[in-house]
Amino acid sequence: MSKYWSNIVKKLDPYVPGEQPKVDDLIKLNTNESPYGPSPEAIKVMIEQANSSLRLYPDPNADLLRETIAEYYGIAPEKVFVGNGSDEILAHTFQAFFQQDKPLLFPDISYSFYPVYCGLYKVDFVPVPLRDDFEIRIEDYKRENGGILFPNPNAPTGLILALDNIEAILRENRDSVVVVDEAYIDFGGESAIGLLHKYDNLLVIQTLSKSRSLAGLRVGFAVGHEGLIEALDRVKNSFNSYPLDRFAIFGAAAAIKDVEHFETITKQIINTRDKLTKSLTDLGFEVLPSMANFVFARNKDWDAGELSMALRQRKILVRHFKQPRIEQFLRITVGTDHECDQLLTALSEILKG
Amino acid sequence: MSKYWSNIVKKLDPYVPGEQPKVDDLIKLNTNESPYGPSPEAIKVMIEQANSSLRLYPDPNADLLRETIAEYYGIAPEKVFVGNGSDEILAHTFQAFFQQDKPLLFPDISYSFYPVYCGLYKVDFVPVPLRDDFEIRIEDYKRENGGILFPNPNAPTGLILALDNIEAILRENRDSVVVVDEAYIDFGGESAIGLLHKYDNLLVIQTLSKSRSLAGLRVGFAVGHEGLIEALDRVKNSFNSYPLDRFAIFGAAAAIKDVEHFETITKQIINTRDKLTKSLTDLGFEVLPSMANFVFARNKDWDAGELSMALRQRKILVRHFKQPRIEQFLRITVGTDHECDQLLTALSEILKG
Repeated sequence: MSKYWSNIVKKLDPYVPGEQPKVDDLIKLNTNESPYGPSPEAIKVMIEQANSSLRLYPDPNADLLRETIAEYYGIAPEKVFVGNGSDEILAHTFQAFFQQDKPLLFPDISYSFYPVYCGLYKVDFVPVPLRDDFEIRIEDYKRENGGILFPNPNAPTGLILALDNIEAILRENRDSVVVVDEAYIDFGGESAIGLLHKYDNLLVIQTLSKSRSLAGLRVGFAVGHEGLIEALDRVKNSFNSYPLDRFAIFGAAAAIKDVEHFETITKQIINTRDKLTKSLTDLGFEVLPSMANFVFARNKDWDAGELSMALRQRKILVRHFKQPRIEQFLRITVGTDHECDQLLTALSEILKG
Repeated sequence: MSKYWSNIVKKLDPYVPGEQPKVDDLIKLNTNESPYGPSPEAIKVMIEQANSSLRLYPDPNADLLRETIAEYYGIAPEKVFVGNGSDEILAHTFQAFFQQDKPLLFPDISYSFYPVYCGLYKVDFVPVPLRDDFEIRIEDYKRENGGILFPNPNAPTGLILALDNIEAILRENRDSVVVVDEAYIDFGGESAIGLLHKYDNLLVIQTLSKSRSLAGLRVGFAVGHEGLIEALDRVKNSFNSYPLDRFAIFGAAAAIKDVEHFETITKQIINTRDKLTKSLTDLGFEVLPSMANFVFARNKDWDAGELSMALRQRKILVRHFKQPRIEQFLRITVGTDHECDQLLTALSEILKG
């Protein structure tokens, strides 16, 4: 600590992202990246962007990308916001909507970045316990609040909340902004974007890091009523005029347009996930029913921390959260079929002792 | 305005960046971009990055880039922070150091984003008037403050403050962080980075948008004592784990390493600037002595707003600030020799009526 730090910095408890190893010979199932490359069309467009026009600023509004997303979902471009990954959009969301006198509500088990944002923006929050089976109980969100936020499917559980339950939360909380963080929605879930026309308090946030295989490009987007998007634009334009570079704007737009590639790889990941779930169950794991590109699993005979270490010794990375209620679970990203086979082989060796 | 907005969003007065026109046939001298393309080596490296590894997150710490910048300046990598353009770094700087009980000091005429950040982070500030000749008077910074910030060279004036004057400010303000925003330092100025070993309250911020011709890539960096860099990392890791994508990390590192390209184009811009200054003076303009890649000029017989409009009709964009004390100036980016000749031809036609 230095005497020059502001009080807020002294108290921060920063987020720790999953490890990005600098060696190549690991099977990386720890940060929910896609096992498949991005759209070849998007790669082509990004190669074209590597030219002398990089001397010029990008479009500060990234209109091309906003319009492409709007067209994809059949909504007006004024209902779309884009940012440097969904994390940046979440940060702006806290500042734009959740700095209120009443506390923000989010599940006690969800994306561990949420309490970090609360620290950064001095937002009071109440963690709402999930049920024992890790489902969201919608009745628990009938209480005074300055905003509601949850991932859907939830992370790290992978469980999905049905749209009629989301609608019940929206209906009960017309005075608050309800943010649905849909980072993992494209692996079998149904987006809340379809509810936009009925609820001006709904903001849906998505990312291109998972289902579009573009974690390395840093692009996310939010859709909601024009009034909410305007607030996000006001914050963004008071923070950084150009958070998306030329590669991000053009590459992301091309990726959204390549529906065929998107459908092929998400179907393949769903297929592998369902096989992995069955195989893990056969090995004695309890696996939560996942609608994401990862599974959340525990083995009652084995400590999750020890399993994670044993996998690491076999050069397989998975994620383990040292957090009450879930410390006996492993979060395992769905890789290729081959990677999942290698994981299963390693696990069965470990379990045999 | 929407009822869902937080109080802070309601009061924001967002920054308005210079226009990025969507047509190609304009001479663009309005946003201080380089007239020359970036390093060919950097372009090569970025083309290589357009591959399936984009499915993976980038290095959250961007170590390659930090180490490259550290090596370039002969300092430890722990003294280097990188961000999504110097604007993002400035934003984090306000949160990390300037949220204090005492007010931040910056010149009344300087980068117009500074008061916007004060609004976003509720930082009290005192604008310190420049002298009548637009120079910084260092005695004015001998007063209670929670931080000091100024561009050097200053924008939009282009005037430079000598290093011994910066050192006097640092010496007098050992309890505050003094931030020197060196966006334009590479066009003839001497960086304050040489003072780092003597002052742990100094933070120097630079960008690759100007002298490295990479405005479209969104990369900036800060150098300072480890304690200051740690504070910026804490804020960044509470905001967005990966603000720099793979193109930005690898492309920026390659651009920093290409010293020959950097020296060639900065020398050419300095050369063109000095010719432009002389020609504008010959046309009857008063031109402030610029150490940046732009000139700040007025013509006592002509209204700057009208001149700006007349140039626009001739498809030449320059920047005009409707702000007290400088509303009769035009800020003109130094383009190629040919672009500056076209500007001068247009101006002499306009002045002839």
